[in-house]
Amino acid sequence: MPADGTSRRSFLQGGAAVLGGAALALGGRAVVDAATADPADAAAPDDAAGRATVAFRGERQPGVTTRPQAFAAFVALDLVDGFDRDALVRLMRIWTDDAERLMAGTPGLADQEKELAAVPARLTVTFGYGPRVFEAAGLADRAPGWLRPLPAFGVDRLEDAWTGGDLVLQVCADDEVTVSHAVRLLVKDARTFTTVRWVQRGFRHAPGTTPSGTTMRNLMGQVDGTRNPDVGVEPALVWSSDDAGPAHAGSTSMVVRRIAMNLDTWDELDRDGREKAVGRRLDTGAPLTGTREHDEPDLDAKGPNGLTVIGPFAHIRRARSENTAERFLRRGYNYDDAPAPGRLSNSGLVFTTFQRDVDAQFVPIQRRLDELDLLNEWTTPIGSAVFYVPGGARSGEYVGQRLLEA
Amino acid sequence: MPADGTSRRSFLQGGAAVLGGAALALGGRAVVDAATADPADAAAPDDAAGRATVAFRGERQPGVTTRPQAFAAFVALDLVDGFDRDALVRLMRIWTDDAERLMAGTPGLADQEKELAAVPARLTVTFGYGPRVFEAAGLADRAPGWLRPLPAFGVDRLEDAWTGGDLVLQVCADDEVTVSHAVRLLVKDARTFTTVRWVQRGFRHAPGTTPSGTTMRNLMGQVDGTRNPDVGVEPALVWSSDDAGPAHAGSTSMVVRRIAMNLDTWDELDRDGREKAVGRRLDTGAPLTGTREHDEPDLDAKGPNGLTVIGPFAHIRRARSENTAERFLRRGYNYDDAPAPGRLSNSGLVFTTFQRDVDAQFVPIQRRLDELDLLNEWTTPIGSAVFYVPGGARSGEYVGQRLLEA
Ligand code: HEM
Ligand code: HEM
Repeated sequence: MPADGTSRRSFLQGGAAVLGGAALALGGRAVVDAATADPADAAAPDDAAGRATVAFRGERQPGVTTRPQAFAAFVALDLVDGFDRDALVRLMRIWTDDAERLMAGTPGLADQEKELAAVPARLTVTFGYGPRVFEAAGLADRAPGWLRPLPAFGVDRLEDAWTGGDLVLQVCADDEVTVSHAVRLLVKDARTFTTVRWVQRGFRHAPGTTPSGTTMRNLMGQVDGTRNPDVGVEPALVWSSDDAGPAHAGSTSMVVRRIAMNLDTWDELDRDGREKAVGRRLDTGAPLTGTREHDEPDLDAKGPNGLTVIGPFAHIRRARSENTAERFLRRGYNYDDAPAPGRLSNSGLVFTTFQRDVDAQFVPIQRRLDELDLLNEWTTPIGSAVFYVPGGARSGEYVGQRLLEA
Repeated sequence: MPADGTSRRSFLQGGAAVLGGAALALGGRAVVDAATADPADAAAPDDAAGRATVAFRGERQPGVTTRPQAFAAFVALDLVDGFDRDALVRLMRIWTDDAERLMAGTPGLADQEKELAAVPARLTVTFGYGPRVFEAAGLADRAPGWLRPLPAFGVDRLEDAWTGGDLVLQVCADDEVTVSHAVRLLVKDARTFTTVRWVQRGFRHAPGTTPSGTTMRNLMGQVDGTRNPDVGVEPALVWSSDDAGPAHAGSTSMVVRRIAMNLDTWDELDRDGREKAVGRRLDTGAPLTGTREHDEPDLDAKGPNGLTVIGPFAHIRRARSENTAERFLRRGYNYDDAPAPGRLSNSGLVFTTFQRDVDAQFVPIQRRLDELDLLNEWTTPIGSAVFYVPGGARSGEYVGQRLLEA
C-alpha cells in the first residue's frame, strides 16, 4: 500500500539469530514486507500483524494517510516555562530518533523496556504543535491563521480535561502493548520539557477480526468512515505542497474532538429513527436511497410521502457541503471509559480529522452540523484541540526541521 | 484447543447470504472452527480471528481456562435494595441468554446495536458472585468460607474505587469493540437490579502480533505468565468437582487485584537489578539459572560470590511455596490509564487469578509476597475483590442454577 507509506522492502536485520519467533525473544529486529501481514497469505508467519512496519522518513509524517491501525493514544503535552527554540530543536531531535527506532521495531536509545519495542505492529508516531510552540520558538509569524481553538459551537460542552494542549503525540499501532510502550518512552524523553495535559486512548476492530477493507463501526453501531476522501487522488485536501513554501511543505493539521455518545437515549430510538438520523442503514451502512455501503446517496430522492428519503436534518446531508473544498480526512477511534456514578456507560469517539486548512475545510462543516444535525441529540463534544502537523523528516532531518530552519 | 472450550465444529449459519465479508455487513452469523483462526493456515479467511467462537455451555464457565484473549473488561456491580432470590434467578436467566447469544456471534434479545455482535472474536463472559449475592438470595449457608475480602496486607493501598463488588462480569475477546458491546448489553440488561461499581479494562498483545504460544509481556517489560499450572492436568487447582456437591460442582473463584506499577522508579534500576528482582531475564524470561523461558529455575544454585543466583527476595522464589497445593491460575491483563497530574504514566496489572479455594491457595502466597518480595518496591495493590464463580450452564440451565436450586 504505497499511500500507506508502508515499507515494501522485505528483509531481516540483526543476523542469523533473528529468525521467526526468536526475533521477539531476543529483542531482535524483524522488519518484513507489510504485504505478508495479510493472514490469507500462506507464507505469512503467525505474528505477521506484529512485524509489519510503516516507513518513518519522508516529506510527510506517517499516521495521517496510513490505513488506521487498531489502537491509538492521543497525548497532549504542555510546555514548561522557559521552553524556547533551542529546547524545541532538542526535543524534536530526541523524538525523531525515538519514533524512527520504534517504528522499525527497535528500542529507543533511552529505552528501559526494550523488549516491548520488538513488536512494531505498524506503529506510527505523529507530532503536532499547538499555538504556544510557535510563540515559544519565536516563530509566531509562521503560525497558520487557523492555529487557534475552534470557534465556540452551540453543541459544545467542552471540559478542560480534554481541551487544548501545546504539543500532541498521536501514537497508533495494531497492538496496544506497542502503543503503551511508545507513549511511555516518548513522554519520558520529554519530561524535562513538558507535562502531560491529557491522554485519550481509542480503538477500532483488532487486526484480523474483520475482512480487510471493512469500514469500522462506532459504538452507536454505525458503519463510520464510509465517505472519506481518497487523499492519494486529492492530496491537497490534507497536505500543504511546495507552494506553501519550504517551511510548510508536507504539513497538515489535526483536529481532535472528544465526542460523547448518549447511548441510553440513543437506544430509546427505534432502528428506523436511528437510520434516519444519519441517512444510512445500520446493517450495511448503505445510504437510505441505496443498497450497498459505497452507493452514492441520492439527496433529492423522495419517498411515497413526498418528503426526501434522506431528511433535511440527516447527519450525512448536513456533513456535506456544495463547496467540495470543505472536506477533510476523518481518522477517529472509539473510546469506552468507566461510567460515572449512576451511569451505564461512558463511550464516544475520539473524533480526529486531518486537513490542510482548518478554517477553510473543517470549521464550515462543523458550523453546519452545529446549526442542524439530528445526531446532535445523542452526541456532545466534550473536548477540542487543534494542532499544526509539521512536514515529515526526510533523510538526515528531524521532524519539524524545515519549519524551524527554513 | 479442547482445554479452551473452543468450538470444534465448523459451520455457517444463516443461509446463503452469509458468506465471507457479507456476514458482517448483513449482521449474519458465521461460526467457524477456532483452528482456522491460525493465520498461518492458507485457508483461513482474513477475519478468522473475528469469527472464532468459544463454547458457552458446559459444567464450567468459559473464560477461566480459555487461552487468554487480547482484551478484557472486569465490571463489578452492586445490588439494588430489595434484590432477592427471585431477582437473582431472573437476572441470571437474562444474562445466560445474552452470553450464549453473544458468544456465538449473534445479538442479544434486547440488543440495540446488533451489528456489533457479529464479531465474536472468542468472546467469553464469566459471571461471579460477591458475598452479598449469597445473602440476598438467602443462601448464606452455601457461601464458601473464603468468600470475603482478602485479609489486609502491609503492601496494600486499596482504593474504594477498585475494591469489592456484589457481582462481577469478566468479558474477554480478541476484539475490543466486541468487549465494549457485550459489556454494554450485559450492564443494560441488569440496570433494574444493579449499579456499576467499577470497570477495569485490560489488554495483552493483539491477535496475530506475536507468535502463537508466546507468553504475554507486562508493562514493566517482563515475560509474565510463564509458570502457570496446566489446569487440564491438574483441574482440582481451579475447579470444584462433584465431591463438592451438586451446588458447587464446576465452580471456582476469581480474585481481581489492581496492582499499580511505579515505572518511574523501576526505570531507575539497571537491567541487572530488574532481573534480580524477579529472578528471571528480561529478554527471554528464562530463570537466572537457565537459558530458556521454560527451564526449571534452580533455587539452590550459587554464583561465584557464594550467594544464590536467584536471591532470597526474588519474586519467583517468594511466589512459590513448598506446598504444591498453594498454586493458582494467573490470568491478568495490562492496564494503562491517563496519568494523574504531574505524573508520566498510570500503568499496572489487572492481576486476576482463579483457584478452587482462595484461603488455601491464594492467601498463603500473597502473604509470603507481603512479607518479602523485592518487586513490592515498584508495585502497589490499589484494588482488591474476591468472587465466587458458579458452575457453568449445561444444556437447558442458566448460569448459577445448580447453586440456586440444588
Ligand atoms: C459522535 C459523533 C459522530 C458520529 C457518531 C458520526 C457518525 C457518522 C456516520 C455514521 C457517518 C456515515 C458514514 C460515513 O460516511 O462515515 C458519518 C459521515 C460523516 N460525518 Fe460524522 N459522525 C459524528 C460527528 C461528526 C463531526 C463532528 C463531523 C464534522 C465536524 C462529522 C463529519 C462527517 C462527514 C464529513 C461525513 C461524510 C458525509 C458525506 O460526505 O456523506 N461527523 N458520520
Ligand atoms: C504488578 C505485580 C506483579 C508483577 C509485575 C509480577 C510479575 C511476575 C513475573 C515477571 C513472573 C515470572 C514469570 C512467570 O512465571 O509468570 C511472575 C511469577 C509469578 N507471580 Fe507475579 N507478579 C506480580 C504480582 C504477583 C502477585 C500479587 C502474585 C500472587 C499473589 C504473584 C504470583 C506469581 C506466581 C505464583 C508466579 C510463578 C512463580 C513460580 O512458580 O515460578 N505475582 N510474576
